[in-house]
Amino acid sequence: MSNDMQEFKELLAEVADLNGAIAVLGWDQQTYMPTGGAETRGEQLGTLAKLSHDKLTHPRVGELAAKLAAHGFADPDSDDARLVKVVLRDYEKAKKVTSAWVSEYAQVTTIAQDAWVAARHESNFSKFQPHLEKVIAMRQEYAEFFKPYDHIYDPLLDDFEPGLKTSEVQQIFAVLREEQVKLIRAIAARPQVDNSFLKTYYDIEKQKAFGMEVIKLFGYNFNMGRQDLAAHPFSTTFGYGDVRITTRFLDDDGASGLFSSMHESGHAMYEQGISEKLRRSSLFTGASMAIHESQSRMWENLVGRSRDFWTFFYPKFQAAFPSQLGNVSLETFYKGINRVQPSLIRVEADEATYNLHVMLRLEIEIALLEGSIKVQDLPAYWNSKMQEYLGVTPKNDAQGVLQDVHWSSGYVGYFPTYALGNLVSVQLWEKIQEQMPDLSSQIRAGQFGELLGWLRTNIHQHGCKYEPQEMVMKVSGSRITPEPYIRYLKKKYSEIYGL
Amino acid sequence: MSNDMQEFKELLAEVADLNGAIAVLGWDQQTYMPTGGAETRGEQLGTLAKLSHDKLTHPRVGELAAKLAAHGFADPDSDDARLVKVVLRDYEKAKKVTSAWVSEYAQVTTIAQDAWVAARHESNFSKFQPHLEKVIAMRQEYAEFFKPYDHIYDPLLDDFEPGLKTSEVQQIFAVLREEQVKLIRAIAARPQVDNSFLKTYYDIEKQKAFGMEVIKLFGYNFNMGRQDLAAHPFSTTFGYGDVRITTRFLDDDGASGLFSSMHESGHAMYEQGISEKLRRSSLFTGASMAIHESQSRMWENLVGRSRDFWTFFYPKFQAAFPSQLGNVSLETFYKGINRVQPSLIRVEADEATYNLHVMLRLEIEIALLEGSIKVQDLPAYWNSKMQEYLGVTPKNDAQGVLQDVHWSSGYVGYFPTYALGNLVSVQLWEKIQEQMPDLSSQIRAGQFGELLGWLRTNIHQHGCKYEPQEMVMKVSGSRITPEPYIRYLKKKYSEIYGL
Repeated sequence: MSNDMQEFKELLAEVADLNGAIAVLGWDQQTYMPTGGAETRGEQLGTLAKLSHDKLTHPRVGELAAKLAAHGFADPDSDDARLVKVVLRDYEKAKKVTSAWVSEYAQVTTIAQDAWVAARHESNFSKFQPHLEKVIAMRQEYAEFFKPYDHIYDPLLDDFEPGLKTSEVQQIFAVLREEQVKLIRAIAARPQVDNSFLKTYYDIEKQKAFGMEVIKLFGYNFNMGRQDLAAHPFSTTFGYGDVRITTRFLDDDGASGLFSSMHESGHAMYEQGISEKLRRSSLFTGASMAIHESQSRMWENLVGRSRDFWTFFYPKFQAAFPSQLGNVSLETFYKGINRVQPSLIRVEADEATYNLHVMLRLEIEIALLEGSIKVQDLPAYWNSKMQEYLGVTPKNDAQGVLQDVHWSSGYVGYFPTYALGNLVSVQLWEKIQEQMPDLSSQIRAGQFGELLGWLRTNIHQHGCKYEPQEMVMKVSGSRITPEPYIRYLKKKYSEIYGL
Repeated sequence: MSNDMQEFKELLAEVADLNGAIAVLGWDQQTYMPTGGAETRGEQLGTLAKLSHDKLTHPRVGELAAKLAAHGFADPDSDDARLVKVVLRDYEKAKKVTSAWVSEYAQVTTIAQDAWVAARHESNFSKFQPHLEKVIAMRQEYAEFFKPYDHIYDPLLDDFEPGLKTSEVQQIFAVLREEQVKLIRAIAARPQVDNSFLKTYYDIEKQKAFGMEVIKLFGYNFNMGRQDLAAHPFSTTFGYGDVRITTRFLDDDGASGLFSSMHESGHAMYEQGISEKLRRSSLFTGASMAIHESQSRMWENLVGRSRDFWTFFYPKFQAAFPSQLGNVSLETFYKGINRVQPSLIRVEADEATYNLHVMLRLEIEIALLEGSIKVQDLPAYWNSKMQEYLGVTPKNDAQGVLQDVHWSSGYVGYFPTYALGNLVSVQLWEKIQEQMPDLSSQIRAGQFGELLGWLRTNIHQHGCKYEPQEMVMKVSGSRITPEPYIRYLKKKYSEIYGL
């Protein structure tokens, strides 16, 4: 069988190379590309996406995968056995989609991203509307390729969260929504904590330097990555040895950019930790977006917004910003960065309200796909849902429906994974606390090596060998479940707000 | 025929998209890529180069080209007619080369570039030697694909300078060498001009700002490009609307970075000026490297090192650097930036000695390809040739044999085009002076629009529709010839040095 396996891997290595090239072009598009390059970039990404799709769906790939699967493996959990399984799954899915659709979709979303940047800049939804209409129409077409389905959202969700169904997400969200709304109401009844010391001038170069120090200590490897600025922070993997992050800093907010850097470093450390043995293969990626988000949210929140973390870092942060923080105690600072306040922007939301932003987006995406609302009605619909979920109304579309890059990139089906990632992060965290009883004191000492090592061993190294629910089960002992996260929120905020 | 033409163009558009993606990956590699990404990048570039080659050499491309050529065109100079002609030429050439070679070559040169950066940094040739051996061996293999040839160097030269033969270059260089050596000796007998005011501290940010102002006034369009820093400055085209340059500044040299920026902007304005009608086609590139170099050297030298240019810019430059230049007159400055002094580094060489650096490289490349010297003997050989051509000896390999990126990129056969570009620049310049009698006064007024317009009309817009010699003939009335350049050098330096 070894010749077949070698041929199989070589075919997939070409797919990996094309996908890596796509990542480079996408990164450049969002960091450095001049505006005049957008149309050309769309054509290039269209061609590369089509080639990648054609290569993955080449009959020889299916033939070899079937042959190798039929032959079987001594160890069904070996890298090779799992590679065949994952490729068969991806192959069957990709074969249902036409390469013409793939190519057009890449072009449409490339141009839509550019339109979104301009529309958001001017806070002018109408500039983005025709592009979003095209994206939604294409996502509907995409779902059609997978008929019959239980729910039109299932095929979209499955791309980001293999194996998960819309109905299961909705069940989880129903529990979560009730509990989080109850918690927020309880918090609203208590005196608010102060965070005005964060909302003042913070020099951007100093923020950047502090953020770099933090993520270096976390373990993000700058020899295998770099950090640049982008309108919407993201992490991207070009391949083994090159996993990059982007961030942005606001000069009137001392913490926003820092948490964004921590968040993206969590994503990037995940992919930097995938075993070199899996390089250039279809297993060289995260298991799913929820697993990914469990890593980014863990570093951002469970580590970065903890009292332990700031016990170590606050004196340094205070020293970097003496005029802003000289008279602010650690305790006041800790409460300030954890202030709960229903607000407009998802990426700025606190932990207690964050998931509500996500649930609102899921509801909207389903309504758009089912056709129960039209894209042109989206700004009004968005604002009414913001009122319903969070009791706030955006002043303009830039702070409302235009705030996220996702739809312009075609990522409809992606948002639920953010909330699921929160849940998984605490499921893992409870397990880590069991196995590392001194986790807390390590963090208070600015030591993250053992934590990162645990994640490398249990999560990172495997790439996408295991399906997300399988991996969560393997590591935490249950499927994705809301209870640990609810427990975590209640404990943390009861203490902060004296509930 | 219109269906055939459309299919033909669509096939070539994919090749153009792949080549554009290769350019993006190459640019990133030389500007921002972390060291850990080199191996992966090599694999990606290998796959993309192989795909591009496979697509260009697909039998359908040859079939369609032959069919379209046989059918003929009402206007043999129409874009379509020329496209078919150029593709037939490229197709026939590419078909001779195996795609395995292409893929390996891309990988070898990607890794060699990284090795070169490290070797140059440490001034340690032995680190680069095994990579260069591989590159030379592969360039020899490449030439073999084109047997029979008159000269082993011909197939390599032809890639950069379509249609030109080594023997013609050697004839031109023989005339040029004699005249330039005579000129340099005459200059050496005269009192040297002062340029010490350039070799002092110049703030890099201020240099950058001044350079940006200059190339913007030249007409480089930052909406369709950008400037970044790189170890070895270059210009690169991702496609229509995105033509980038890189530069570097030295804090102990006031002019080096500026001239480098002007030079690269000349290349980039050429490609920014190619007609949009030719976008995504095989004609969307410069006619040859010599034509390219005629543009870069024109902006760098004929414009940028002229008294007219500095009549306008010197007061601004002086104002930016008052402590360095406050007491330096325009005349002294003009002479200083045109100081003739045999030296070690090609890209820093003055106009009177520059071509000698090139001739030396041609001689070395031919010796390596013919096998009359070995790579391991190169540092010693290089140093002896430097003594022979220029009377100077490098202190170390970084200032000697390791100074240029070209060989690490596989660009063996490229160097002669630098000298040929100098010749062409003056052939064109004489024609421009005829047709724009007030050229001189326009430059003295900081106006470059008409000059750029002339270049756009006569050179840029055509892309590579015309072969280089055909284009030089069309515009200047003769093939590439050394006399105008020799005339130019003699006139300029007789005046500066009072010969």
